[in-house]
Amino acid sequence: MTPEEFRIHGHALIDWIADYVEDVEERPVGAMVEPGDVRSRLPEHPPTEPESFDAVMADVEQIVVPGLTQWQHPGFFAYFPSNTSYPSILGELLSAGLGVQGMSWVTSPACTEVETLMLDWMRELLDLPERFDSRSDNGGGVIQGTASEATLVAILSARWRATAGAVNADGNTTKLVAYATSQAHSSIEKGLRIAGVGTERIRVVAHDESFAMRTDALEEMITADRAAGLVPFFVCSTHGTTSSMAFDPTSAIGPICEREGIWLHVDAAMSGIAALAPEHRWVNDGMGYADSYCTNPHKWMGVNFDCNLYWTADRTALLGALSILPEYLRSQAAEAGAVIDYRDWQIPLGRRFRALKLWFAIRCEGVAAFQTMIRRHVELTHDLAALVTADDRFEIVAPHPLNLLCLAVRSDGDSGAATDRLIDAANATGDALFTRTVLDGRSVLRVSIGARATERHHVDAAWNLLTTLA
Amino acid sequence: MTPEEFRIHGHALIDWIADYVEDVEERPVGAMVEPGDVRSRLPEHPPTEPESFDAVMADVEQIVVPGLTQWQHPGFFAYFPSNTSYPSILGELLSAGLGVQGMSWVTSPACTEVETLMLDWMRELLDLPERFDSRSDNGGGVIQGTASEATLVAILSARWRATAGAVNADGNTTKLVAYATSQAHSSIEKGLRIAGVGTERIRVVAHDESFAMRTDALEEMITADRAAGLVPFFVCSTHGTTSSMAFDPTSAIGPICEREGIWLHVDAAMSGIAALAPEHRWVNDGMGYADSYCTNPHKWMGVNFDCNLYWTADRTALLGALSILPEYLRSQAAEAGAVIDYRDWQIPLGRRFRALKLWFAIRCEGVAAFQTMIRRHVELTHDLAALVTADDRFEIVAPHPLNLLCLAVRSDGDSGAATDRLIDAANATGDALFTRTVLDGRSVLRVSIGARATERHHVDAAWNLLTTLA
Repeated sequence: MTPEEFRIHGHALIDWIADYVEDVEERPVGAMVEPGDVRSRLPEHPPTEPESFDAVMADVEQIVVPGLTQWQHPGFFAYFPSNTSYPSILGELLSAGLGVQGMSWVTSPACTEVETLMLDWMRELLDLPERFDSRSDNGGGVIQGTASEATLVAILSARWRATAGAVNADGNTTKLVAYATSQAHSSIEKGLRIAGVGTERIRVVAHDESFAMRTDALEEMITADRAAGLVPFFVCSTHGTTSSMAFDPTSAIGPICEREGIWLHVDAAMSGIAALAPEHRWVNDGMGYADSYCTNPHKWMGVNFDCNLYWTADRTALLGALSILPEYLRSQAAEAGAVIDYRDWQIPLGRRFRALKLWFAIRCEGVAAFQTMIRRHVELTHDLAALVTADDRFEIVAPHPLNLLCLAVRSDGDSGAATDRLIDAANATGDALFTRTVLDGRSVLRVSIGARATERHHVDAAWNLLTTLA
Repeated sequence: MTPEEFRIHGHALIDWIADYVEDVEERPVGAMVEPGDVRSRLPEHPPTEPESFDAVMADVEQIVVPGLTQWQHPGFFAYFPSNTSYPSILGELLSAGLGVQGMSWVTSPACTEVETLMLDWMRELLDLPERFDSRSDNGGGVIQGTASEATLVAILSARWRATAGAVNADGNTTKLVAYATSQAHSSIEKGLRIAGVGTERIRVVAHDESFAMRTDALEEMITADRAAGLVPFFVCSTHGTTSSMAFDPTSAIGPICEREGIWLHVDAAMSGIAALAPEHRWVNDGMGYADSYCTNPHKWMGVNFDCNLYWTADRTALLGALSILPEYLRSQAAEAGAVIDYRDWQIPLGRRFRALKLWFAIRCEGVAAFQTMIRRHVELTHDLAALVTADDRFEIVAPHPLNLLCLAVRSDGDSGAATDRLIDAANATGDALFTRTVLDGRSVLRVSIGARATERHHVDAAWNLLTTLA
């Protein structure tokens, strides 16, 4: 492809994307395909000759897009949202066009320095503790791809600190014990397993009726584990669980962790961004106790996936766990301690210039735009909850402090059958997409209100759909 | 930003990128900034009001780009290349514009199915064993972000197999021993440490004068470890090491691993792509023994970072190590076994639609274009080697089968001082960028010839620069 062709096709693709984003509502929100449908319509073998860009885009339109779940659709109430925004799309494009690699400061200084600045900006915008700031004694932040990666980094930092670094040499994790509720994200168990903390040493702490961690249960477990000669090393407190958006009581968990010398990780992947709006800053309660914290602008802030923000107050443990310095990566700037080498803050070595999309979003879209969106989603959730409460056929089965509402069909009793049928029937219309979860054994329909395009009439239509089908 | 503004700014950015790529040669290849320079020129606090896109782009041009190392510069001979290409940039743009998330098949079926097809296409194009094909009994491939992540996935699969899955419950890694040479990538040690295999159980296998693994040393170590009651579980054979592009003898290592029941991972992050050209298919020697394999289209195939291809012949171990199924991720398609859920093939949960950039590159650029580039780089390296050999001031200190030449200043003796000074002086000109490594205690200047824009006159100019400065 020549530069001239790139200009022509690039302009066309920009227009195609604008059309796609503006018209996505006209498509079914869930993909209406069976396993294998997409592949069966594409050539089994690679082409031997170059093809035209138009031929590729024809396949995109006719085969690929109909085979996608439209995450930007205003009727997307499934999982958690994964917002994009126009400035962020352009930031991602610029990152691809520059094609630089920011594994170390020296491999592209601006890639590191803009990222550090973005983490400090976001710390300020979210009103997070100053000890997470890059200019603090021992803290700082970094962009990770996903909360799963942030979680693993937190676990590895905790593991290093609990063993005073010995784990790097002896790899012995057999005494370490971690704590979270059954409502914590699956990445907690996955990360712990990766780090050599098997399920036998992952304690599932009891939760209360609001699906939040019971600190009495946590304390009892820690005491029992210490008595058994084990080493409690990691607690995950979730601010906004995936199933029901429950908030663990970090203000009460924190003092326990502090007293016991246990690493406290706060996972606010979905809900932490709510703190952009001052009235929602309660989502940060107890954060002063956290050793590490993460939240996802790629969920609720219009910054394209992947963009997870991870902060720690213990950079020493982070670097102790993750830094390795082969000869081919040495640099004078790094050895003088004057710079951050983000490769030592993450699992991979290489890294894209992801800070651009966050920088573009904050500057071109403006924080007020994100505050407005967050407030709208919270209000829509609140208003939907009132409608559900007024309808005898349904019940709300979990607190709904922000933008997730968990419903069940009342006639279900314990079976969950009617709720499951309702989800399937609603999704089959293509007008809305919901996902199911199970809360204490009960089938639940989750209404996650977080797509950027979702307005009041979309939520009204979704509720109308549910009541009609029920 | 309105859709209309997105169209205008998007078109302008496409043009800006074409200009950047075509004119990058006019910039210094290495960033000419000191630590803190970039940040000091940007506002310390986020803006409260939205800014114009033009204001942001002005900062990009005046502050960000001069603070970057220009990885696409034809004078970039540092590290390993990180190619982009126009179709791949557009593929990345489309991925950002669609904003879908392919963690499971059901969350965007086409995202999974196009990716599976791309891995099968690439298996065919690289002439890799059929047991890596997604249609084989127990194999398949996936796009990882980086080779570091692929390595960790391989280690975790090996760990699961060696413990018959017990590690998921007991987390006990204290008997496991891994093997690689000192020339293996730093991600091997990092991945092993993460997985609970500390440096006490990472064996550094001796290498020969070509920096390739000595299989007699490997066998002795395995025997000694078995005698000590330990469990050899993982061997990394590198095809193209980072320091010198050495090739471990997989054809000889493979039978040892097979006999001993040890997982054999082949890391061909840089060099594996050479197999696109039939005359370089020797880079696959011994691949029939590999349990897992990875190579990077984002290095030498014009597919934007991040795009690592990871294949395994043992999907059972992969899924045993990495799958976790919470209620909120269950789907009928997955439970029927009809689909691949790539979240279980990687460390993170979420994933971008990265297959698009590979698909766009193969279809629009064509495989022949990449073959031509690879052949040109190999020929340029060969011809440069002839020039170096003819110059008494320099010596070549490692084999150079493909596109990396390792030089030292002959007068150095053991000190490395003259070579180090030469690297610094050359890089300070801004005309070329080299990186240093150490081979068996000796300072080495690496000439990595792999940027897409690098032509003969660029290599000639670089050699002229080195000889002038020497």
